[in-house]
Amino acid sequence: MAVRLGDEQRIAWLRLIRSENVGPHTFRSLVNHFGGAVAALEALPELARRGGRSGVICARARAEDEIAEIVARGARLIALGEPDYPPALAAADGAPPLLTVAGHAGVFHRPMVAIVGGRNASSAGRSFATRLAAELGGAGWVVVSGLARGVDAAAHSASVSTGTVAVFAGGLDCLYPPEHADLANRICAEGALVSEMPMGWQPRGRDFPRRNRIIAGMSLGVVVVEAAVRSGSLITARLATEMGREVMAAPGSPLDPRCEGSNALLREGATFITRSDDVIEALAPLIDRGEPPPQPISLAQAEAAGFDNEEPAADDRARVVELLGPSPALVDDLVRQSGADARTVQIVLLELELAGRIERHAGGRVRLRPAEDWV
Amino acid sequence: MAVRLGDEQRIAWLRLIRSENVGPHTFRSLVNHFGGAVAALEALPELARRGGRSGVICARARAEDEIAEIVARGARLIALGEPDYPPALAAADGAPPLLTVAGHAGVFHRPMVAIVGGRNASSAGRSFATRLAAELGGAGWVVVSGLARGVDAAAHSASVSTGTVAVFAGGLDCLYPPEHADLANRICAEGALVSEMPMGWQPRGRDFPRRNRIIAGMSLGVVVVEAAVRSGSLITARLATEMGREVMAAPGSPLDPRCEGSNALLREGATFITRSDDVIEALAPLIDRGEPPPQPISLAQAEAAGFDNEEPAADDRARVVELLGPSPALVDDLVRQSGADARTVQIVLLELELAGRIERHAGGRVRLRPAEDWV
Repeated sequence: MAVRLGDEQRIAWLRLIRSENVGPHTFRSLVNHFGGAVAALEALPELARRGGRSGVICARARAEDEIAEIVARGARLIALGEPDYPPALAAADGAPPLLTVAGHAGVFHRPMVAIVGGRNASSAGRSFATRLAAELGGAGWVVVSGLARGVDAAAHSASVSTGTVAVFAGGLDCLYPPEHADLANRICAEGALVSEMPMGWQPRGRDFPRRNRIIAGMSLGVVVVEAAVRSGSLITARLATEMGREVMAAPGSPLDPRCEGSNALLREGATFITRSDDVIEALAPLIDRGEPPPQPISLAQAEAAGFDNEEPAADDRARVVELLGPSPALVDDLVRQSGADARTVQIVLLELELAGRIERHAGGRVRLRPAEDWV
Repeated sequence: MAVRLGDEQRIAWLRLIRSENVGPHTFRSLVNHFGGAVAALEALPELARRGGRSGVICARARAEDEIAEIVARGARLIALGEPDYPPALAAADGAPPLLTVAGHAGVFHRPMVAIVGGRNASSAGRSFATRLAAELGGAGWVVVSGLARGVDAAAHSASVSTGTVAVFAGGLDCLYPPEHADLANRICAEGALVSEMPMGWQPRGRDFPRRNRIIAGMSLGVVVVEAAVRSGSLITARLATEMGREVMAAPGSPLDPRCEGSNALLREGATFITRSDDVIEALAPLIDRGEPPPQPISLAQAEAAGFDNEEPAADDRARVVELLGPSPALVDDLVRQSGADARTVQIVLLELELAGRIERHAGGRVRLRPAEDWV
């Protein structure tokens, strides 16, 4: 059922996701509510104003500039629901509406496995990541990682010739770390570079966990090699668990702090990996389960529905706002408890989202941001 | 219900277990069948003759010499069922009827944990065994091991002051390896040296797995640190599983062959150990479950029953022998299928055991030895 966006739709999608306070969840709510990105963009200023603060809407020229830059670098934008969008990621909660991709999107249609681990990995850890990636690549798997120093770089390097995917935390032109420029170029030969961030975006600390959800989301499972406690690799593992992906880890010496996090995963029940066959055995049953990924945004109906931006009654809005608090609440509960109809609750939540006053969480939950966090 | 053997009983027990073709299982059958070791000893020559080959019965003088040697070395014999016999071992299938013990048998009444591993362990493996044994000792646990080089020696050394037990594969005067003489002496300060073999017995290859069942049997659980494939530590782990003991292992690098066996245990579900708290958490629920260990040989009734060594009818014997084969058969099945009464089947099996023609296996099973293996 995958279709391609038209040029106008693609510009509207890009403007919408690049507008202030619009993340993947809000994007989905807006497109579903208004029947498409074009209509959502039109509704945006009024919605945000009603929420209490007008957010900055991405100008058409800025979106066109970004697309020109992407094309100039030989990359392209792939939208959620298009045929080249990574299928496992499409099925994940919070999937990015648009990915910037350089290289060969064809790899997304082969089974993918993430290999992640410490930047300061031991020599043995790097060797193991190298061996694992080479063997999995040889067996037809695409290796996904984050292009970091240490385990990530070892895994990418060993699978350049069989296909590997590096997910950036910043824009595709903002490589981090810079010394991996040559590796990034080599990855493009048979694999792909991926980012959900705009060109020119320098990655900040909070962009890395956000990026890690894409690594986990693209893959059937994540192998953690040498992760310390409180490391990014453990965040990837946690996100993978939340997404229902297989979490695997390689054992390490109990005396090595670089392995404390990965050993903790194993203690908590992660699949025990000492060779590539262990990975294949764990993941093979997950390939081609025959279910098409859910289509969270129906492109077929996109832009088709009518414009519906009627202002909710002040009473209804007040009741919804009153029910919100700092703990995430289920949207379904808000509908039931407020007595307002579902469409009204959706509109009120969109207003608040665009004003930066609430956050969306996985599983259809929202929570109020503390006032000092309003953006 | 524990009682102490009288001097005469102890000599009879020692003669019986030191007689040819009498192992722990046969010992139990004989004592239970004849109501005591004294009566069993009397029945032995006739039984063995009927089985087809007279085994060598340990002479009284030889047993007295052994006891004198044991006493001269400051050690003593502790019989299954006596108060100082290690309680967990008493409950194990194939528990040795007699243990020679030097040092302090009092440690047997504290909770015990085995730490075993590679003789060629890495520096990290030895350090981990040292840390684990010291912490477990500090927490009140007695550390059991096999006095081998590498992990065993590290575990004993670190727990000398808190109590550790070394189980020998040969006689207590046949230390292996010889360079651990000083360590063995230090172990006696707060712990104990244990053997089921006669004084003067030089350990052969097959004595080590036999010894390993005592290590596992004394302990609530076994921690394996750095075991290669086909190593003695894996045998200990397998025996521990069969005995219902907790099997635990420390992780190691997937690239280190010295850790392949221990990693394989973890892959198969052994409890994952990276610190002493993991061990305590796994074993604490097993302490003091309130059940007294089963008394496989009732000393209270020993020597009390009458002498019963009536020769079975030739027909009955022939039917039992015909049912035996190279695959282990349940004794209960032999009784049912032969139509002979249980006591007759027991007698026939004792005859064959003493003639070295059958082997006892765990779970009340026996199998015929191939003719070329008859001893």
